[in-house]
Amino acid sequence: MAITGEMLIGASAVRGTEGDIYGINPATGEKLQPAFGGGGAAEVERACALAAAAFDTFRQTAPEQRAAFLEAAAQAILDLGDELIERAVAESGLPRGRIEGERGRTVGQLRMFAGVVREGGWVDARIDPAQPDRKPLARSDIRQRHIAVGPVAVFGASNFPLAFSVGGGDTASALAAGCPVVVKGHSAHPGTSELVGRAIQSAVKASGLPEGVFSLLMGSGAKVGAALVADPRIQAVGFTGSFSGGTALLKIAQSRPHPIPVYAEMSSINPVFLLPGAMAKRADGIGKGFVGSLTMGAGQFCTNPGLVLGVEGKELDAFIASASEALKGSAAQTMLTPGIFKAYEEGVSRLSTNNRVETVVEGLTGAGPNQGRAALFSTTAEHFAADLALQEEVFGSASLIIRCPDLETMLGLAEKLEGQLTATIQMEPEDLELARRLVPVLERKVGRILVNGYPTGVEVGHAMVHGGPWPSTSDGRTTSVGSLAIRRFLRPVAYQDFPDALLPEALRNGNPQGLWRRTDGQLGRD
Amino acid sequence: MAITGEMLIGASAVRGTEGDIYGINPATGEKLQPAFGGGGAAEVERACALAAAAFDTFRQTAPEQRAAFLEAAAQAILDLGDELIERAVAESGLPRGRIEGERGRTVGQLRMFAGVVREGGWVDARIDPAQPDRKPLARSDIRQRHIAVGPVAVFGASNFPLAFSVGGGDTASALAAGCPVVVKGHSAHPGTSELVGRAIQSAVKASGLPEGVFSLLMGSGAKVGAALVADPRIQAVGFTGSFSGGTALLKIAQSRPHPIPVYAEMSSINPVFLLPGAMAKRADGIGKGFVGSLTMGAGQFCTNPGLVLGVEGKELDAFIASASEALKGSAAQTMLTPGIFKAYEEGVSRLSTNNRVETVVEGLTGAGPNQGRAALFSTTAEHFAADLALQEEVFGSASLIIRCPDLETMLGLAEKLEGQLTATIQMEPEDLELARRLVPVLERKVGRILVNGYPTGVEVGHAMVHGGPWPSTSDGRTTSVGSLAIRRFLRPVAYQDFPDALLPEALRNGNPQGLWRRTDGQLGRD
Repeated sequence: MAITGEMLIGASAVRGTEGDIYGINPATGEKLQPAFGGGGAAEVERACALAAAAFDTFRQTAPEQRAAFLEAAAQAILDLGDELIERAVAESGLPRGRIEGERGRTVGQLRMFAGVVREGGWVDARIDPAQPDRKPLARSDIRQRHIAVGPVAVFGASNFPLAFSVGGGDTASALAAGCPVVVKGHSAHPGTSELVGRAIQSAVKASGLPEGVFSLLMGSGAKVGAALVADPRIQAVGFTGSFSGGTALLKIAQSRPHPIPVYAEMSSINPVFLLPGAMAKRADGIGKGFVGSLTMGAGQFCTNPGLVLGVEGKELDAFIASASEALKGSAAQTMLTPGIFKAYEEGVSRLSTNNRVETVVEGLTGAGPNQGRAALFSTTAEHFAADLALQEEVFGSASLIIRCPDLETMLGLAEKLEGQLTATIQMEPEDLELARRLVPVLERKVGRILVNGYPTGVEVGHAMVHGGPWPSTSDGRTTSVGSLAIRRFLRPVAYQDFPDALLPEALRNGNPQGLWRRTDGQLGRD
Repeated sequence: MAITGEMLIGASAVRGTEGDIYGINPATGEKLQPAFGGGGAAEVERACALAAAAFDTFRQTAPEQRAAFLEAAAQAILDLGDELIERAVAESGLPRGRIEGERGRTVGQLRMFAGVVREGGWVDARIDPAQPDRKPLARSDIRQRHIAVGPVAVFGASNFPLAFSVGGGDTASALAAGCPVVVKGHSAHPGTSELVGRAIQSAVKASGLPEGVFSLLMGSGAKVGAALVADPRIQAVGFTGSFSGGTALLKIAQSRPHPIPVYAEMSSINPVFLLPGAMAKRADGIGKGFVGSLTMGAGQFCTNPGLVLGVEGKELDAFIASASEALKGSAAQTMLTPGIFKAYEEGVSRLSTNNRVETVVEGLTGAGPNQGRAALFSTTAEHFAADLALQEEVFGSASLIIRCPDLETMLGLAEKLEGQLTATIQMEPEDLELARRLVPVLERKVGRILVNGYPTGVEVGHAMVHGGPWPSTSDGRTTSVGSLAIRRFLRPVAYQDFPDALLPEALRNGNPQGLWRRTDGQLGRD
């Protein structure tokens, strides 16, 4: 498939006229052809009008039709073959194996949501049957289901050009809910965006759906992104990126005459707590495992472990020695974009020039542009508690070890943490009572707590939470990964005393869709 | 129980020092004793500190303990006996029967949430078991549950001094979720608030819970209310009241360093659509039924039918004649507060002096203060479409009939409506095709659609939705009535590779709580 540099608005391909955008190969600095024309207000208007026109038809598709569409989109992405892999590698600097894995994840995610649509638990069907003889007043028949909120704006992320981008988790969960999607593609991977966009566009057509179910815009965040979030037809926003980007969109969404929810996954430093039993047994192994997680993908993960808390002593020294040994030999890695590399260098410099922070070790330098060099820092609990800026995310392979004088101080610092996507506890059975004190604090602070693992690697499943309290996300009530992500794009509607023929099928007598439904609050499938 | 005029902060009773607040009997204008001292920053601080201190203990109570506490609170409210009824009647001007019914609803609501807590569906427990042999990477064991978001601020509503106030639906659902509650009582019924507050306070104590689980503050919205929403320990807000009040709280919540959700139920005019088949058969009866709903409780319901849409012709004339006949003999009724009465008079005057609006009929005038006189207006579809101000809620027994030239115009107007709590369709089987065109539009606009009923009377059950798109509420993804209301105060947390002994009981092997849980996405109870 030729990459043309066009945007996809419904069934059309449209050349933007507001400035040229080029993909850049961050490993070489090479400008990748072709030029992509940036969109403007007219394209936002057209995509939103088509999305609004498609909404009622799309949200009312039968579960089987919507599921088959998601599967067709997955297959169409696979059918792009090597062209997609090569373009994504060139635009991201990520290794081929990683991109292939990410494609598997992206396709798997679409297929999982097909299963979710078919299973129908997301409908949360409820029936409170009439009680005509109730005294003093008869009770009406009331039924409830969840429906799609409306057209959704999705912002592609730089760090997952497939799994969190044009056909990623936000798009998959919004489409599964029955929401048309207008994507603002990330300018760091415009060719990858177009390829995936064309795959979804073809699936819309092959599935006989209205064209407005999917559009892909390119262009500046300040122009296209802002206009999209401000458009009155858009009813929710999915975003993965920086804190400044997420909060900017949130402000626009809140300033609309009709405010809408923004699901922005923003920043997290993912603390790792080293408990004494684990350290007595495995300080060395934990150090190695930690560096493996820290340096994976040049540290460009939302769940990268950017903070480690341990108690001063020989075990912590052993951990630091082991981590240092592993990290100092770690090769520099190409970062995603010159902008991300620059921000990483600035973040590292901020830490290394902070006179309350010690530079423990740095990884190998690299040749060529945008080579992120891993770095490990340490400071005291006292300094950390006194300087909130030390909680700022440095996106990349940099982490800060907090040396606590004792366990109580470590537990106290947990209470001072900002909201996070994850927290990790390294523990052994003898640490159980300590962990029982730590977990309730972490539950208030994070979306996912791990024991004896590392936070990178976010499983796409039914139990995953990739979310967390502010500032890790803009809405801690949700997740952007896993089947629960569909709930972000739903709202409940009740139907009172409807004749059966007028009810949505999910709520009809005889349960024709075979759903789990709550009747007077009790789950059943009759 | 003596009403002392004190606030309830945890286990203490505290006299506020920032100005005196008196209940007023709106039927007589009489100032009711005693004076209530308004609170200030110090009381907000103390209540929030206690709530935060109580949070971990309260949210981790066993389901049975929390359910029993809700039942104890219900019983304690009942045990207040006639004193509560008499005080609420005096402070609200509502008839005794209505207040008794509302007490039943309030107590029933607390008991329903006790059942919800025990049943445990709100936990949404999920388990994705480990797959140690998965290739290329082993899968971790990941489990998920929902936990309480944190201390919740609840604002009592004027129009339901029991069911939407100190011990009302917001409080009941937040407590059920495991959130400590700090109520800002409505100044229109301070004595009722104190009595109910003391009942809940006694239930907290009797249940052996930390005192911070419940506090009741009194005072000005601009001072106490604003400070409460701004307090960093408060994690969500429940509010029922005016659009201006709700949006003011929303702005405060959004401006916090850590923004929080506001569930504000604000304004709605609850359109009633008169379809031709129903009008041909029942125009007269519909007119009478409509006026019954319109004038109930002096029209002081969020779901009061403030808008009627019908097609010009003899059937609409018959409806208007019947409604006029019923309405012109309707007695004036005491409104809740002098402020609400004044706003109602202004709203009626705005309509009656609008030269595009015709006054159809007015009800009887009343003797004494604050007597709301019902009023019915009409206008054309053209005028209505041209003047968005005609969609502004007039809180009270006033309604506007829109005379449409044809059915297409009526359907077109549905598309122009703002978000509403409810919409009603009057129909007969021969209207089915028309209703099938109308329902998808209404689904996008409202939270509850009724057939052949009237929107007043909101059943507390599992299928109810009392919510809807902006501006009817600030968050159309939720309901403030019914068991789903608990979801407003929950967020998901995932546990990865936890030893069984460290897992919350809801997620442990063997399912010790007997919950419905999703294993790899499939519901089961094993």
